[in-house]
Amino acid sequence: MDMPIGFRMAGVSCAIKASGKKDVTLIVADEEAVSAGVYTQNKVVAAPVVLCRARTPGDSARAVIINSGNANACTGTQGERDAARMCQVTAEHVGISPDQCLLMSTGIIGVPLPMSKVEEGIHLAYQQLGNSEQHFLDAADGILTTDKSRKIASCEFNLGDRSIRIAAMAKGAGMIGPNMATMLCQILTDAPLTPEDAQAILARVANRSFNNISVEGHTSTNDTMLLLSSCKAGGPTLTGAQIDAFESELATLCIDLAKQIPTDGEGASHLIEIQVTGAASESDARAISETIASSNLVKTAIYGSDPNWGRIVSAAGYAKCTLDTNHIGLSINGIELFRQGQPIEFCEQTASRSIAENPTTVIEIVVGSGPGSCTHWTSDLTVEYVRFNSEYTT
Amino acid sequence: MDMPIGFRMAGVSCAIKASGKKDVTLIVADEEAVSAGVYTQNKVVAAPVVLCRARTPGDSARAVIINSGNANACTGTQGERDAARMCQVTAEHVGISPDQCLLMSTGIIGVPLPMSKVEEGIHLAYQQLGNSEQHFLDAADGILTTDKSRKIASCEFNLGDRSIRIAAMAKGAGMIGPNMATMLCQILTDAPLTPEDAQAILARVANRSFNNISVEGHTSTNDTMLLLSSCKAGGPTLTGAQIDAFESELATLCIDLAKQIPTDGEGASHLIEIQVTGAASESDARAISETIASSNLVKTAIYGSDPNWGRIVSAAGYAKCTLDTNHIGLSINGIELFRQGQPIEFCEQTASRSIAENPTTVIEIVVGSGPGSCTHWTSDLTVEYVRFNSEYTT
Repeated sequence: MDMPIGFRMAGVSCAIKASGKKDVTLIVADEEAVSAGVYTQNKVVAAPVVLCRARTPGDSARAVIINSGNANACTGTQGERDAARMCQVTAEHVGISPDQCLLMSTGIIGVPLPMSKVEEGIHLAYQQLGNSEQHFLDAADGILTTDKSRKIASCEFNLGDRSIRIAAMAKGAGMIGPNMATMLCQILTDAPLTPEDAQAILARVANRSFNNISVEGHTSTNDTMLLLSSCKAGGPTLTGAQIDAFESELATLCIDLAKQIPTDGEGASHLIEIQVTGAASESDARAISETIASSNLVKTAIYGSDPNWGRIVSAAGYAKCTLDTNHIGLSINGIELFRQGQPIEFCEQTASRSIAENPTTVIEIVVGSGPGSCTHWTSDLTVEYVRFNSEYTT
Repeated sequence: MDMPIGFRMAGVSCAIKASGKKDVTLIVADEEAVSAGVYTQNKVVAAPVVLCRARTPGDSARAVIINSGNANACTGTQGERDAARMCQVTAEHVGISPDQCLLMSTGIIGVPLPMSKVEEGIHLAYQQLGNSEQHFLDAADGILTTDKSRKIASCEFNLGDRSIRIAAMAKGAGMIGPNMATMLCQILTDAPLTPEDAQAILARVANRSFNNISVEGHTSTNDTMLLLSSCKAGGPTLTGAQIDAFESELATLCIDLAKQIPTDGEGASHLIEIQVTGAASESDARAISETIASSNLVKTAIYGSDPNWGRIVSAAGYAKCTLDTNHIGLSINGIELFRQGQPIEFCEQTASRSIAENPTTVIEIVVGSGPGSCTHWTSDLTVEYVRFNSEYTT
């Protein structure tokens, strides 16, 4: 773990979750930090999203308070008061102004936050703040809900003679649909950045990582992706080629982190990687990759280890974009199944075995000779997904 | 059964399906009939759709040949030749020109038609033509694939002193997504209509019936809805208020028929009726109803008898349209769960039991005070759906 300079954090349990697992995470910047955020495009937004949106980008963030187990979404005016109170209580502990506090919530919808528990959680977390790797892991655990596993990524790299660190945590396994930021993600870095550059970088990186994943395509009310920079790596603010280099490192890290979500998708048995090339534009490529990723017929076929290219090609055909049907070509795990709009001979057993034996299924689809390309990651649709989501309580 | 005057039909088995069930249906008009068609908006279209599209609307159709078990889709130039050959063989038997023949295919994608079987089927069907109710039922059976039950509807009504008959058959249980005509539907009538009026009526009716249903939202390559009129009810061609009256009867019949499809949706345990009102426009209402209907989280909740209004409201929130989130209201089976953007108290047990005990779940969602409304029907997402579609072979 390469911990960025200038942050302390903690993850604790305060019994919002009946399971007793960690459910409150507090991150504190030692001094005022640059902040940037990308948020859900759902028009029904949770109270914490409204507050956070108004406070990023900025240059004076000092804390992020996150609870899991309750999304504080569709909770009306009570929800707005509770979100403000979470910032207030955090601010009192840290000794900052409430508007220097960002926040996220995730979990069940439509139930008011159990505020006495949440306040106790903030108090506990404040007492346990630290900057060790274990503190970071605890913080990463505090944001999980139906996730089977912790989702983290970090890197350290040099820009000229400076060493820069990025560490990030994410959560998400269901209600994952691609529309700007998806789920919760907190990125910490010490790279010196202006708020404007941080915001622009974050938006571009979201479009290559968290906006390109899905589990069932249902965009949540709480999706939030935050970046905090302490700017403590030293030296002047990044410019020009340094920004490009930083963005490239951040994109690699975020793609790694984003892929962990459908890999851990509720009930998932396969990660499906959909590579679209040859589209008329990037937005056309995105429309096609999202449509294929949203097809239950494609997702159940992969679950059944069935190289059912007909379902994939027909899904591409109803994407809302232009398509040169005479030039469609398709491979699954490198095995060519369809070329120039025509089916070709292939060994079904070999293709099926390849899907069954690999945890990732790679679908490559060429849709013409244009410059547009996009890669999307999703999970397969399994009996376990349906069981889980029909038994999950309101 | 009210059989329209002027048609004979048959449904036979020629072993395209391994099950031995009926797989070829032939319908012959005694004299030249008015025809109209509405087709899939998928850009990947099967060969029969290409042929049919070029031949409707028209006033000289004499036959419709339909096979099930093989969709003749993604079959390249061979598929085009086979579709033309089906018309040719039918025309030779009936004694008409091949371009007076319409056709549909449904079933697996990407496998060439077994043409010797299909030709034998056409021959057999021609020998068994008749105009009894049993002939109609046999014809309706010949177009089914994964359907558990036959889908038919008919009516007889008076326009002034004339009696008019409509009889229709449909098929579909999977790969059902709303985009113009969905699945196969053949409508027969004896109402005197011009081809232009028939086409306009059919397009409007499709937008209130077959375009408002889904199973998993995957638009197929073969969707076709055909109307044939023998015009033999007598009297002059319908005009003005008579056309409106005919369209109203046809719409009622098609909504009945369309609802049979998600009711029989693969693995379905509930028909879900989604009534959106108060939207800014009809197209906004359609966007919202389709988005809710496409949400696996909504569909698994209904399967689990869970009155999970949070999933429904959040799905409405990511529909691509405007939404007045402070005026959203929601009821399930008449039980109010959400009002003016705020959750309200309700008995979860009562709501859950109501879903469990009724084969249809009615979701009413008000999204503002606009004039736009739309009703959409879909099926729930069950363990059986996933099992079925992961085991269905390429």
